[in-house]
Formats: sequence, C-alpha cells, structure tokens
Amino acid sequence: MDEKKIKSILRDVASGGTPVAKAAKAIREIVDPDLQYACVDHHRAKRCGFPEVILCEGKTTSQVAGIAREILRTGEVLLATRAEPSVFERLKKVSRRAVYNRPGRCVVIDRRKKKPKPIGLVAVVTAGTADIPVAEEARITAEVMGAHVEAVYDVGVAGIHRILSRIDVLRNARAVVVAAGMEGALASVVGGLVERPVIAVPTCIGYGASFGGLAALLGMLNSCAANVSVVNIDNGFGAGYNAALINRVAMDEED
Amino acid sequence: MDEKKIKSILRDVASGGTPVAKAAKAIREIVDPDLQYACVDHHRAKRCGFPEVILCEGKTTSQVAGIAREILRTGEVLLATRAEPSVFERLKKVSRRAVYNRPGRCVVIDRRKKKPKPIGLVAVVTAGTADIPVAEEARITAEVMGAHVEAVYDVGVAGIHRILSRIDVLRNARAVVVAAGMEGALASVVGGLVERPVIAVPTCIGYGASFGGLAALLGMLNSCAANVSVVNIDNGFGAGYNAALINRVAMDEED
Amino acid sequence: MDEKKIKSILRDVASGGTPVAKAAKAIREIVDPDLQYACVDHHRAKRCGFPEVILCEGKTTSQVAGIAREILRTGEVLLATRAEPSVFERLKKVSRRAVYNRPGRCVVIDRRKKKPKPIGLVAVVTAGTADIPVAEEARITAEVMGAHVEAVYDVGVAGIHRILSRIDVLRNARAVVVAAGMEGALASVVGGLVERPVIAVPTCIGYGASFGGLAALLGMLNSCAANVSVVNIDNGFGAGYNAALINRVAMDEED
Amino acid sequence: MDEKKIKSILRDVASGGTPVAKAAKAIREIVDPDLQYACVDHHRAKRCGFPEVILCEGKTTSQVAGIAREILRTGEVLLATRAEPSVFERLKKVSRRAVYNRPGRCVVIDRRKKKPKPIGLVAVVTAGTADIPVAEEARITAEVMGAHVEAVYDVGVAGIHRILSRIDVLRNARAVVVAAGMEGALASVVGGLVERPVIAVPTCIGYGASFGGLAALLGMLNSCAANVSVVNIDNGFGAGYNAALINRVAMDEED
Amino acid sequence: MDEKKIKSILRDVASGGTPVAKAAKAIREIVDPDLQYACVDHHRAKRCGFPEVILCEGKTTSQVAGIAREILRTGEVLLATRAEPSVFERLKKVSRRAVYNRPGRCVVIDRRKKKPKPIGLVAVVTAGTADIPVAEEARITAEVMGAHVEAVYDVGVAGIHRILSRIDVLRNARAVVVAAGMEGALASVVGGLVERPVIAVPTCIGYGASFGGLAALLGMLNSCAANVSVVNIDNGFGAGYNAALINRVAMDEED
Amino acid sequence: MDEKKIKSILRDVASGGTPVAKAAKAIREIVDPDLQYACVDHHRAKRCGFPEVILCEGKTTSQVAGIAREILRTGEVLLATRAEPSVFERLKKVSRRAVYNRPGRCVVIDRRKKKPKPIGLVAVVTAGTADIPVAEEARITAEVMGAHVEAVYDVGVAGIHRILSRIDVLRNARAVVVAAGMEGALASVVGGLVERPVIAVPTCIGYGASFGGLAALLGMLNSCAANVSVVNIDNGFGAGYNAALINRVAMDEED
Amino acid sequence: MDEKKIKSILRDVASGGTPVAKAAKAIREIVDPDLQYACVDHHRAKRCGFPEVILCEGKTTSQVAGIAREILRTGEVLLATRAEPSVFERLKKVSRRAVYNRPGRCVVIDRRKKKPKPIGLVAVVTAGTADIPVAEEARITAEVMGAHVEAVYDVGVAGIHRILSRIDVLRNARAVVVAAGMEGALASVVGGLVERPVIAVPTCIGYGASFGGLAALLGMLNSCAANVSVVNIDNGFGAGYNAALINRVAMDEED
Amino acid sequence: MDEKKIKSILRDVASGGTPVAKAAKAIREIVDPDLQYACVDHHRAKRCGFPEVILCEGKTTSQVAGIAREILRTGEVLLATRAEPSVFERLKKVSRRAVYNRPGRCVVIDRRKKKPKPIGLVAVVTAGTADIPVAEEARITAEVMGAHVEAVYDVGVAGIHRILSRIDVLRNARAVVVAAGMEGALASVVGGLVERPVIAVPTCIGYGASFGGLAALLGMLNSCAANVSVVNIDNGFGAGYNAALINRVAMDEED
Repeated sequence: MDEKKIKSILRDVASGGTPVAKAAKAIREIVDPDLQYACVDHHRAKRCGFPEVILCEGKTTSQVAGIAREILRTGEVLLATRAEPSVFERLKKVSRRAVYNRPGRCVVIDRRKKKPKPIGLVAVVTAGTADIPVAEEARITAEVMGAHVEAVYDVGVAGIHRILSRIDVLRNARAVVVAAGMEGALASVVGGLVERPVIAVPTCIGYGASFGGLAALLGMLNSCAANVSVVNIDNGFGAGYNAALINRVAMDEED
Repeated sequence: MDEKKIKSILRDVASGGTPVAKAAKAIREIVDPDLQYACVDHHRAKRCGFPEVILCEGKTTSQVAGIAREILRTGEVLLATRAEPSVFERLKKVSRRAVYNRPGRCVVIDRRKKKPKPIGLVAVVTAGTADIPVAEEARITAEVMGAHVEAVYDVGVAGIHRILSRIDVLRNARAVVVAAGMEGALASVVGGLVERPVIAVPTCIGYGASFGGLAALLGMLNSCAANVSVVNIDNGFGAGYNAALINRVAMDEED
Repeated sequence: MDEKKIKSILRDVASGGTPVAKAAKAIREIVDPDLQYACVDHHRAKRCGFPEVILCEGKTTSQVAGIAREILRTGEVLLATRAEPSVFERLKKVSRRAVYNRPGRCVVIDRRKKKPKPIGLVAVVTAGTADIPVAEEARITAEVMGAHVEAVYDVGVAGIHRILSRIDVLRNARAVVVAAGMEGALASVVGGLVERPVIAVPTCIGYGASFGGLAALLGMLNSCAANVSVVNIDNGFGAGYNAALINRVAMDEED
Repeated sequence: MDEKKIKSILRDVASGGTPVAKAAKAIREIVDPDLQYACVDHHRAKRCGFPEVILCEGKTTSQVAGIAREILRTGEVLLATRAEPSVFERLKKVSRRAVYNRPGRCVVIDRRKKKPKPIGLVAVVTAGTADIPVAEEARITAEVMGAHVEAVYDVGVAGIHRILSRIDVLRNARAVVVAAGMEGALASVVGGLVERPVIAVPTCIGYGASFGGLAALLGMLNSCAANVSVVNIDNGFGAGYNAALINRVAMDEED
Repeated sequence: MDEKKIKSILRDVASGGTPVAKAAKAIREIVDPDLQYACVDHHRAKRCGFPEVILCEGKTTSQVAGIAREILRTGEVLLATRAEPSVFERLKKVSRRAVYNRPGRCVVIDRRKKKPKPIGLVAVVTAGTADIPVAEEARITAEVMGAHVEAVYDVGVAGIHRILSRIDVLRNARAVVVAAGMEGALASVVGGLVERPVIAVPTCIGYGASFGGLAALLGMLNSCAANVSVVNIDNGFGAGYNAALINRVAMDEED
Repeated sequence: MDEKKIKSILRDVASGGTPVAKAAKAIREIVDPDLQYACVDHHRAKRCGFPEVILCEGKTTSQVAGIAREILRTGEVLLATRAEPSVFERLKKVSRRAVYNRPGRCVVIDRRKKKPKPIGLVAVVTAGTADIPVAEEARITAEVMGAHVEAVYDVGVAGIHRILSRIDVLRNARAVVVAAGMEGALASVVGGLVERPVIAVPTCIGYGASFGGLAALLGMLNSCAANVSVVNIDNGFGAGYNAALINRVAMDEED
Repeated sequence: MDEKKIKSILRDVASGGTPVAKAAKAIREIVDPDLQYACVDHHRAKRCGFPEVILCEGKTTSQVAGIAREILRTGEVLLATRAEPSVFERLKKVSRRAVYNRPGRCVVIDRRKKKPKPIGLVAVVTAGTADIPVAEEARITAEVMGAHVEAVYDVGVAGIHRILSRIDVLRNARAVVVAAGMEGALASVVGGLVERPVIAVPTCIGYGASFGGLAALLGMLNSCAANVSVVNIDNGFGAGYNAALINRVAMDEED
Repeated sequence: MDEKKIKSILRDVASGGTPVAKAAKAIREIVDPDLQYACVDHHRAKRCGFPEVILCEGKTTSQVAGIAREILRTGEVLLATRAEPSVFERLKKVSRRAVYNRPGRCVVIDRRKKKPKPIGLVAVVTAGTADIPVAEEARITAEVMGAHVEAVYDVGVAGIHRILSRIDVLRNARAVVVAAGMEGALASVVGGLVERPVIAVPTCIGYGASFGGLAALLGMLNSCAANVSVVNIDNGFGAGYNAALINRVAMDEED
C-alpha cells in the first residue's frame, strides 16, 4: 500500500481540492486493487502486524494464485490454509519459497530476509492421532505469527496419565490449543490443569453421533472449566491465530 | 399371580378340555387384571427377581395409587420414580411403609420382613452438586435391587485431583454410574480409570448449548473410553438398574 | 488450606512413615473438606490467583450458602453467578459484604482489606439493550479478576456508525467481549476492527429461528474474522473470565 | 398457447354447446401439453411477463431438453438453472442461441429479436470470493427478467471498509441481493446501510458448524435489520427473481 | 437531531479548528445521546423516512419508556412491537396518543398533525384464525409506514376455494404478506397466484413436529414458487416492513 | 348453505345477467359467511360426509364459540379438539348437547335425532397409561365419524405378552391406531401382527432424548413394518380421522 | 412352507408326543430356513396375501439373490426395491421373468400363470418431474399388490390450475399417494380436495434448507388437512403399500 | 513395559536419589515410547486384562502399522477395528498371524501360544441382514476378549415370531448385544424378554428420516425396557466390549 499517495489524497481533501466521494474512491483503488473476484485487503496485514491469509476452500486454483500474487506485490509473508496439493503446486510457481505442510494442508510463503525469533510459548495438544491435521494447521499458523510452539499429541482422557505426565509444558505456555474430536473431553481436563486461556478446537474425528464434530463442539462449549473458549469445528487456523494473539499481548505490553 | 389357577388352566388345555383362545384369555386376566388404564405385569417382577416399578410422570396421582395397590396385592417391593411430593402423600395412604427420597423423587415401599443383605458394590459418581438428584435416583434404584452402593459426588474434571483421590472406591466397584451434565466429560475419565462397565447418565444440568442435556448425551455416546454405555438424559433409574443387573451377574453365577 | 499440615504429611511420606494411600486420603480431606454435596476446591483459587466461583443455578439456596461459608473459611474473594435475589438474601447472612448486580445476577463478596488497582483494559460490548444482563455478568467477572473494564452497549450492526464511533475504546483494549443475540453479527464486525482477541458470547435474545441463541452461536463460530473465539450461550461469566485471563497474560509477563 | 382455441372453447361453453368438464379438459390440453414427466405451464410466462424457468437438478438431461423444446414452441426466453455443462451441451442442440454462465450454472436462451433495455438497478453483493457462483445465478436471473444489475463482490464484514466504500452503488439500487456464507453477517450490515428491500441468500460456503449454510441462514433470518428477507440456501435464482420483481414494481406503476 | 450544531462542527473541522477525533465524539453525542442502556438512532428515521421502532421484548418497561421519550424528543411517529399490556400502560403516560392493537401487541404513537394518505396496496393473508396476531403486527407496521392494507384471513389450503375466491385482492396488491403456521403451504399457493413479491412469515401455530414454527419456516424457504422470500418465525413486523418498502419503491420512482 | 340461492345466482350467470366476478363474490358470502377471524367452510362437511371440526388451540374462547354457532346454523354434528375445560363451559352455552371427554380434551355436539349405527371396527392401542389422552382423542374422533372402536391400552413392547394376548381384536379391525411415546416401538410390532393399515401417532410422553415426541416420531417413520403410516406428534385427531376414513372405504364400496 | 409337516408336528404336540420347545424349533426350521444372514419369513406372504419384498439397500447382491431364491422356492411373486441395475442383472439369473422399473429401481418377479385383474383405484401424484422415481416405486408396489393405479405427475402447487384440472381422477380413487419434495405443500392441497385417505411421501428433492427431505416431511406431518398420513422420506414402497392396503379393505369387505 | 526399570526408578525416588520430575519423565518414556503421532499405552492392556485396540479410521495405514509394531513389542493380542482391506494387507506384513473379518472390518493378531477357553455367553442379535457388519464387529470384539458368543441374525420385530423362537439363546446369555437400524425397536423387545443387561447399538441402516442412525439411537435411548443401555451408532466394538466386560464380571467374582 502506497501510504504516500494516500497522504497526498488526504492533503487534497483537507485543502478542499478533492471532494470526499472522489477521494474515497481513489483510496479504495489503492487499498483494494480489484481482482473482480476478490478485494485484497493490503492494509489488514499492516494493521494487525500479521501475514495475509488465504482460505483456499471454495476458491479456484487460479483465484488463489491471483490473490497470492496481489498480496505479494506489497507483502512479505503469506499463509494459505485448506490448500490441496494442487494449490501448492500452483503457488510454487508464484513463489519458489512456498513451503507445504501436508497434514495441516498449509502453504507458507515467507520472503523476509531475516526471520524474527519465536516468542513466548503456545502449546498445541491433541486427544488422538487422527486430530493431528487440525493441530498442525494451528501450529503452523501460530508459528507464522511469531510464536514458539510445542506439540503434545495423542494424550486423550481415556488414559489420563498421558496428559498428566506432560503437565510442565502446558503450565509454561501462555495459551494452549486443544484439538479433540469424539467427545472433546480433553479441553475441560486441560482447562482444569492450567491457569491460562485454552482455545478448544473440535475436530470432525468420530462417527455416528459425533455428527461431524458437533458432539465435540457442544462438549467444549459446555466445558465446566471457565478458561475454555471455542472455535469452529476443524478450525485449526482460528485456534492457532487466537493463541498467537494472546501470546503477543504479553509481548506488546512488554515493549 | 395365582400359579395354581394357571396350572389348572394349562392342564385343561393339555387334556383338550379348554380351547387355546379361551385359555389365553383366562390366563391374561390372572396375569394382567385390567385397571382400564394399565396392564399391571405381575409376573415381570417374578420373572426378573426385581421390584415392580411405576414411572409416575404422565400418570395421574389416582392412576399411580391404583397401580400401586394392584402391585402390592401380590408383590412385596415397589419403586415409584419421578414421584412428586403429592404422589408420595397419596402412596403413604396405600402403604404406611412408603419412604420418600426427595432429591431423587423416589418412593420405595418395601414390605419384606427380612431385608436381604446388600451385595457387591456399585459406585455412583457425579460431576457436580446439581447432578445429585439424578444420582440419587440411580442409588435408590440400585439399592432396592439389592446392591451395595457408594456415592462419590461433585468430582468433575475441571479439578481432576478430586476424582483421582477417590480412585479406590471406583476400582472396587463391579459397575460404576456416572451422572454428569454440561459436557459430561467425567464419564470418559472414569472409563479410563476403571476396568468395569461404566453406565453414563447425562443430566439436563447446564444452559444454552447444553440443549437440555443433549451436549452431555452426545459427549458420552462418543466417549473415547470403550467401557462406557449410555442411558437417556436424567434417567438415573435406568443407570441404577443396569448397574445393579451387572452387579448381580456375578452373584447369580456364583450360586 | 493448611499448607503446613500438607508439608508435614509429605515429610512423613518422604521418611517412609506414612504409606502413599493413607497420605493421599489425608491430603484430600484437607483440600476438599466434604460437604456431602460439594467438593470445595480450596487450592484452585490459590493455583489460579482468582476468586472461587459458585454457579448457583441447579443448587439449592442452602447448598450455595454452605459452599460460600466453606470457601470463606480460607478465602477472601467469592463470586456467585446466576444468583437469584433469594440467593443474594441468603448470602448477605453469610457475609454482610455481599454485593449484588441485579441485571447480571452476580453476588460478589470481597473481604480484602486493600483492593488491588484494576489493570489493563477489557472492553465489553453489546449489540442491543436486551444483551446487557449477559454483558454485566462478563463485566463483573472481569473486574473481580482485576481488570479495568469499559462498557460499550447497544451498538449493533444495523446502525454501523454506532460501533464505528467507539472504535478508540475497542482498539485500546487487550481483549474485547462481544455479547449479542439474534444473528450475532457484531462479533465479526468488531473482530475486523481490532487486532486483539475477541471473546464472543451469544445471548438467547431473539425469538423464532433464534432457537434460544443457537443462531447467534452458529454465527459467531463461523465468524469470518480470525480473532474471534466463542463461549456458551449467555455465558457472560466465561467471556469475562477469558478476557481477564488474556488481560493478565500481559501483566504476568511484565513482572 | 393458442388463445384463439381457448376463446373458441369458451364461446362454446357460453352457448351451452360444450359441458364444463369437457371444456376444462380441452383447455388443459392446450395449456399443459403432457410430456408424461412434466406439465409445462405455458401461460405462467405470459401471466407473469417473465421467462419460463427450468430447475435442472433432479431431472435427466433428456427431460430438460424435452421441456425446453416444449417451452420454446410458444415462448421466446428460457432460463435453465443448476445446469451442469452436459445439460448446456444438450440445450445447445435445442437452440444454438443457448448461452452458458459457468460459475452460475445458468443457461439462457433468448430468441427475442429486440432485447428490451435493462431497467432500474439491482445490486448483487457477496461477502467472499467463494460466494460468487450463487451471486452469478442471481445476477443472470435478474438480468434475464429485465433488470440492470451491478455486482459488488468480496466485501465481507471482517474488513468493514470494503462495503462502506461501495455505499453509493447500494443506495442507488431499488433492491439489493446479498449472498454470504459462514455467519452471513453482511446481510445485516447492508440492511442497515440502505433504505430498500434486501434479499439475503445464504450460501453453503463454510465448514464445520456452518452445517451446509444453516449458520448463515439462521443469521439472516434473525437479522437485526428490518428490511432483510431471506431465500433458501444457495438459491441465487430466487434472490435474483425477487429483486427483479421489486425492481419492476416501480416500472409497472410508472406506466 | 440538531443539524445546525452538526454543520457548525463540520465547519470547524473544515477550517482546521477542530481535530477529527474530537468532532466525531461531538457528533456522536448529538446523534446518539447516551441512555446508558440504549443508543437511540435519531437519524435512522430521517435516513429511511420511516418511524423509529422499539422491539419491547427483552427490555424492561422503564427502558422502553426511556427510549420512547428520547425518540419523541425529535421524532413524530413511533411503533413499539411485542408490547405487553403493561408496556402500553406505561407508554400512555409518555404520550396520550398511544394506541394499542392488542392481538398484534403493537403500540403506535403518531403525533403528526396531518396524517399522509395511504398509498398503493399491501395484502395481508393468513392460513388460519390463530395466525391473526402475527398478521395484525404486519398490518399495523405496513400502515404506519404509509401503505394501504387489505386483510384476507383464514383462507388456508385445506379448503382451496377460500383463497381462490379472494384472488382479486391478491392480484391488485404490490406486495403480499402470507402468515401461516403448521405446514405453511399457503405461501406457495399464493406465490403461484400472483405476480408480485410475496413475503412469507411462518408462525409458531401448530404443535408436535411443528417445532415452534420450524416446519412452516422450512416449508416457506423451500417454496416451489419463485417469488417467495421469508422472514423469521412470528416476525409480522419484518414482513409488514418489507411489504411496505416494496409498496413504496413504486411511489418513490413515481416522484 | 342455501343451495337455492346459489342455483339462482348460477342461472343469472348462465343467462348473462350477472358477471362472473360478482357472482363469485355472492357465492362466497353464502358459502363462507365472514366472521372476520374465520372462514367457516359449510360445504366441507357436506362434501366429506363428516362433522365440521374446530381445532381450539390458538383460538380465543370467543372465537371458538362464534365458529361453533356459525357451524350449527346449518350443521348437526360438531367436534372441538384440544378444548380446555373453559372452552367446554362456553360451548355448553352454545348447545346444551355439548359433551366433554376430559382426558381427550374433546367436545362433541351431536344434534342428530337418530344416531347412525357404528360400522366396521377401528382398534385404538396405546403403549402406556400416559398415552391414553392422545388415544382418547383418536377414539372420540373415529366414533363421531361413525366407526365402531375398541380400545386396547397399556400394552407396550417391554412386556410383549400383553399385546400378543390381544391379537384377536387387532386382527378383526379394518384399521389400527397405535399411540406410543418414548421409542414408539409398538407401532412396528403391531404392524407385523396385522394385515391392515396401521396409523401410528407418536406422543410427547417421555423425557430427555425423547425431545417432546421426536424419538417416537422418527421411530415410527422408520418402521420396518410396511403397513405403518404416521401422523403428527399427539395428533390423536388425525389418527382417528384416517382410521375412520379407511373404515368407511369398505362401507362406501359395499353400497 | 409345508403346512402338512407343521400340522403333523402340532398333532404330535397335542398328543404329548413332542415337547413344546422341540416343536417350536422344528416349526422354526420350516418357516425360517436359515440362510445365516437372513430369516426368510415364508408365512408372511401367505399371512398378508401379498408378495414377499426384499429391500436391497444394505444387502450384497449375493445376499439379495440368495433371499430371492429362498422366497421363490415356495412363493410366486417377489418385489425387490431400491435395486441397482447390477442387482437386476443378478436377479435375471434367478428368474428370467424378472422385470425392472429403472426410475423406480424396482424388480418384480411374477410367476403366477394367471395375473389377477387390478381392482379399485389408487392415484399416484407428484409435485414435480424430479419426484417421479419415488412415485414409480409407489405405483409398482401398489400394482403388484393388485391395485389399479393412475399416475398424475408434475402438478405442484405453484401452478394450482394443474392439480385442479385433474380433480376427477383424484376423487375417484380410494386412496391417493402424493410424492413431493421441497415444501411438500401438494399433500395438503390434495388432502383438501378429496374425501379419501392421502398417503404423503416426502422426497429428498430440493437443496439447502430442504435438508434431504426434512422440510417436506415436516410440512406433511403438520398438514392442515386431516386426511393426510405420512411415510418416510423417499419411501415410495411404503406409500404404495398402504394405499394398496386401503384399496383392498373395500375389496375384502365386499367378499 | 519394563517393570524392573520402573521399580528401579521408584527405588531411586524413595532414596532421594532422583527428583520427582525427572522420575516422572523417565517412567513416561518407558510407558509411552513416543511415536510422534501416538502415545501407545502399554500398561492399559495389562491394567484391564484385554488386548490393545487400534481404531484405524482417521489414521494413515503407516500410522496403524507403526502403532501395531509398538504394541506387539510387548503385547500378544491386538484388535484393529474399522480396518479397510488395505490396512489388513499392511498388518499382514507386521504379523503373519493377522486375521481379517471382512464384513466386520476387524483385524485380529493373536500370538498367544495357548488360547484361553471362551467363557460365559454373549448373544449378538440383529434386526436385519444389513445390520450384520456392525454385529460382526461386536462378535469379534467379545470373542477376542474371551467370551463365548452366539449370533442371532435377522430377527426384527416386523415378524415377531422370529425373535420369540430364539428366546432360549437370549435367556442363557449373561449379556445381549442388539444391533438394529431403522427404528431400532428390537432392543426394547429383547429387553423385555431377558433379565440381563442389553447393550443396544444403533446402526446407520435406513434412509430418509433415519438420519444416519439417529432414529434408531433415539429409539434405543428412550427404550421402555429398563435394562437397555446404548453405545454410539455403528459402534459394534463398544457393544461387544461392554458385553464382554459384563460376561467377565461373573468370572472374576468366581475366582
């Protein structure tokens, strides 16, 4: 985004040289260069200090590539979620720095010359092996947003000693992501063990009366632990994003 | 039930003196004397070795009293569930031995001269204080069916040390009833701690997305612990009944 | 909780003078003095640095009072949520410092001689006037946990200028609570406006296809803003609790 | 439809020459020539002044072609919705004027020699890129019904400045179609910005607790903006149809 | 709203005498004088040319009265919906011109000296007698927004001749509201009979599998008639509002 | 209904003396004299040979009385369903022949001098005592429509011998109504035992996951017996109506 | 089924020569020769006077063929529903008289030398073209059970004149099957037009909020016409079966 | 699991030579050797006396093989459920003793030299042929846990004589598994016939309003027979597991 141009336009408005309607249109064209099918929001990244994100699901491969190019015109870091292998193949042509996390279906393009050092600690926990893809999406997201992440996988409540034996990692984290399907009980148990915010992400793992993750979702929403909040089923991205935000609150305040 | 009469009828059928249709009708009138509004099933108690049970909900107080009188004509033990105080008042007139468990809304009438000694061990566990009424219904039911019962209340998973500190009671039981509302996670945790069948009873405790116990029900049905089976929301009676049955399997086989 | 006694017990275990099982039982009796109907968890408050909380719904007034007395035996701050006026009347007898927030149905008993200064900033926002009771529960909770709170009420999206005009408060907050019923769209709009975590709490406000808050709940779970996580319908307590936790992450790290 | 024949039959009825039952049957055969599998309703188009529409989903390609031929026997304009590419291939054989909108899955056959000039203004808005197929179905429908249409795509509420910057188009429209998936919040925001009827069409875009568009549907039905009405999930056709009807109310009254 | 003051502020901004942030706050205080519990939106009425509306449900009687007073400080017409008789009693004290429609639970306060002549035609139709309260809410709303309204009540599809005999009224209307509970089939039948937009409002009338109006809602959303759009269950206000808006589109364009 | 008047109007139309529109209106006023809130459908009774029915739920007592008077102006038999005692009190004033079935909440007014002899046989069966009110509504309805009815109550499947012992009644019936709540399994068992149509009516009896009769409804819809069709939850009227219709098919054909 | 053998066994029982348990087992082996995976119920057909039916869905092709062979060992007429083409290919090898109705997915094998003359009249009606497969299943079923059937297809309520013009067929039928998807309103309209039982079968035709036929199902269950009963979604077989049963009630009584 | 090592560690702790935290970590590494994607729980099998189980669904074939190898490092018996044929092919490479039950999708690897003799009796019952796969999963599970099992298949309630003729097997069993789809009524009927615990497993067999097994699930949860408890839809494993546990309660107590 060309801040100079915008300032210039604003000065023209201040001086009365440009009517408001015309100025608004000019600014929009700078902020959201129109791809017909997408309003890329260049200033969001700057506004939030985070990489721009493309949710690939529901978009054609061409659309994803077009949006990626537009983002990279001015930005340095890009995260594409729910990206099938074919999308990754296409994005490799947009930038040869594209890196793919297959289980988490994430593509990261990071063109920064000097990567910042990971800060704080986010723990990402799963109840079972099958919940790992969602957890990986959370992990990649939190990492690309600057967090140090530790993974604690397959520690569901039916063998309670497994999570109890990892309690140190959990208690050191500033935020904990818990990914669990089936009944999702792990979120409540973890919530009771730590004093930090827990972001629970129900997964669609299960069958029958799991109803595609609904059982885990309802379980987590009704958690008896007060420090649990919930994101959408299989929304590893959202869980990682919120955990990283919390992880940064501390950082920002320290400054 | 007058077994003599029935045997006499059967002898008449065997001898060809009574046609089958007529005999069937005669037997029915002995077995199920018609109260118009209810077919009391006298031989069920004998068949199963358990007290006859009246589910009071949906019946008028008069109907409950009528059924109770009919049962007590030949039976000795009666359990009335979901009995409002007014029902108890009426049943006290049917038998002065009627005893009321107010939180569990159960009336027991036990006219046996010599009460049998409780056998085995059934543990009844709740996640919270508010789940106690359902647990009490389970406890009374299991006791009236002959089980020794221990109650372990308010040990939900948000403070996991509470259930862990009671692990001895759980492991000594032949069957465990877990009553929990909200997310119902306690059933899975208990299931992971014991090697016996766990009967999970979701309660309607909770609000919002608990949807009257649906969240707990789904959670329990999707339990990651293999030894958990489930009964209807707030069905303390069914939970206690199944636990007592399991408790007796051992007894029966010992004989 | 008597830490001395516990240490003494532990020393006995270390010296081999007390077997583990016996020690565990002794500790449990100190930590969770049994009220029959409740396992009060004295060390949770200490563990988390927060007041002990009683969810009054589903408990009798006597049970609430008993638990409150047990808590105040060793604790200084108590929050009772979903407290009907009759519960407040009873709690006033437990402690004359009991204070009632009628719309939020919260009772606070704070016996600390010197109240700590509120820290940070949590914003609590509602879409409509009818969402205020849930927001008040969030506000009281966050305040009792030490947060400075600002309320921004009745700024729903149908008049978008209302929320835009308050944007400064939102952007200064470390965490934002958004309480909204009906379609719950305000959470997404606020999520897009701020760079901090947003805790969305759907309310049961609405009728017909709001299905008791389900519409708002689903809307918030599907938010197109990545920084939104969700708690149960009408769970103002949980929203305030999580916001206060986030607000404190910064504080703790600063130390 | 042969109006002359019908008038002749009616004259015969009036003169008493033809009994009512027989006349009714004769008229039916003119109005709805039987294709066995379909009652084509020739007079609907005339009745409503709009093209006849075929919903292709659920019909075989042969059936669609047969119905199209029957319609074109007397009509000039035909819209086929939810048409897979194979249906388009078949319809091209029915009329070489068949035109296909691939994202919107619409086939239009327009054999009018002189196309009428588009009237009024309908705005079609989407929250995201993935909602465009449904919006295109709405756009084509409104256009084939005579409306001038402007598209405003990918302006969801998480970046509220995007929709605010297009406010002029919205305020000039006589009716606005809003297509949005996920939480569907855009409908309420647009509803608050304009003074005209808004037809909200939820899309199935989303995952997990979007439940195939249910979340957006409920959100739109519970909109806090009074000028929002709703059509079925993914029903771009219905949204465009209603918007075009409203757009024409003005026209008709002007005459 | 004091336009003079606003203009004065704007002039100060233009001259550089007032910074933008300060001006924004000043304008907000004029536009939305803060009642603590409500942001009254004085310019919405002017913006839309319609009366300000208070949804009373979920607000205390005092809050309704306070908002009403605030509205009437600058406005002339006020509609209060879902108003219980006690609310009406209170509003009579705010203005003795308050008029109550009991079945529709609407209060109207109209202080205009010269009432405008009703324009156009909106038809309000019900399937049964029990749907009339919702229809009355629609009728009052449309009338207070300037429409001429005709009511056609109790013409459900089980006796199809009833609606057919009123076809003239339906066909003369610019928009038709159909209020129906149970299966809600009337909306589709009316949709097939007229060439104008039909606003369908499902009612909660019915029992069992009507699920509080869900059956009618789903029926209407799936209408086979293309000109049907839907509002929330029992939302007579929204139906009347949209119908009146459509009715005015014609008017506005005529000007 | 005055057939003479209608014939006279029709003659005027035939002679060209009255235009169609005017004639239609005149006929409507005879057929459906307008009570404002209800279109009484006098010719339906004649059309179907059955009494006119008033569903009282959702109507005021005054409205019910008004409709009853209008019906009795020309009809002889009236059935009012879901009638509270207060409605019965009012209807006794309309006709002293009003008779009330309290459990079934039905009022019958039968002013025929000579009651027709009951024909055929309809069996009405319930699973439990609590289902009797719904069954009584079915029984009264079938009887008032001319059927001979036999009731077989409280024969649920948990004691399968109860229904087996009544098999003769079931097999003699031309149609069987089965009213059952909870899991509704009785419908399938009865369906397997008889060769006639079974009308299953789920009742709201049950609790928890019965979801107000939904469990029984789904069970009956998925019956493995092919001869089961289903009516709405608690719709004893509809079940009795359909059974009586089937019972009459035979009669009508015999004539 | 060998009735002679059974009578012989029964005689042995009567004479005391065979104990009951042994006799029961012997009879079972005759009645239900065990195919391991299926208990073919030979006496059902005889019991009901109808062909034996195989629901193919969920069974392997081999299982269907095995069951068919077992049935045809003693039976003459067989109906296989939900039969994919591959099942038909296999059944042609079981009997070369196998006939396939492709849209209705039914295979009929009729080895009777003299086919009985169709009796009575069943009307099968559909709302749209896409509902025809379900209607065909109903038609084939009713025909194979002996009914004369007339089909009235694509007469949905959005063009109400279509169904009105076929009213004669409907009124002559003894039972009417209505197959409709989307909102399913046709069932109520037909119910209001005829005096016979209407069997409504919701179809899964539709999209979005049709939820796989749920909307039509709920609509039909809530029908305002009293003579409508409902079968499962897409259960054309059940609808045809019930209609044929009703059609036969008359026949049987005539004998 | 190396018990010696653990004891050695514990001795070190007792002697003060090893701090608790370090010891916990060491024990964890023995008990749960980390496969990155799975925490294999070696001591569970020993704890419960049962084989370790792998739920294959949601895991990659490689992950299943890795977990199997880890289990077999110390264990002798392994059950893999929901195993596709490709998983079986892979497991055959892990151990040539792998045996596959195709309909039940179970792989069993049993390397014990001397298989224990089956004990007690578990009956596994199905309503239809299509429920057999779920029942086979239950049967294999119960057998691998040591139970003697008898299968009673295709005895649904529409032909009630089928289940009645097998009553001896049912009454001899210590626990009964009932697998049924559609309406699931068989569970209640079996529950009424036996005096032992019945584990009901709903299957997804059915269509339309079976909603993937929801109808059967709700039916079983609402069973009028008190001895029925329920597991998840299609959870044959859980049903067999619980039945085998109950079957063993007797055994254990006998010892």
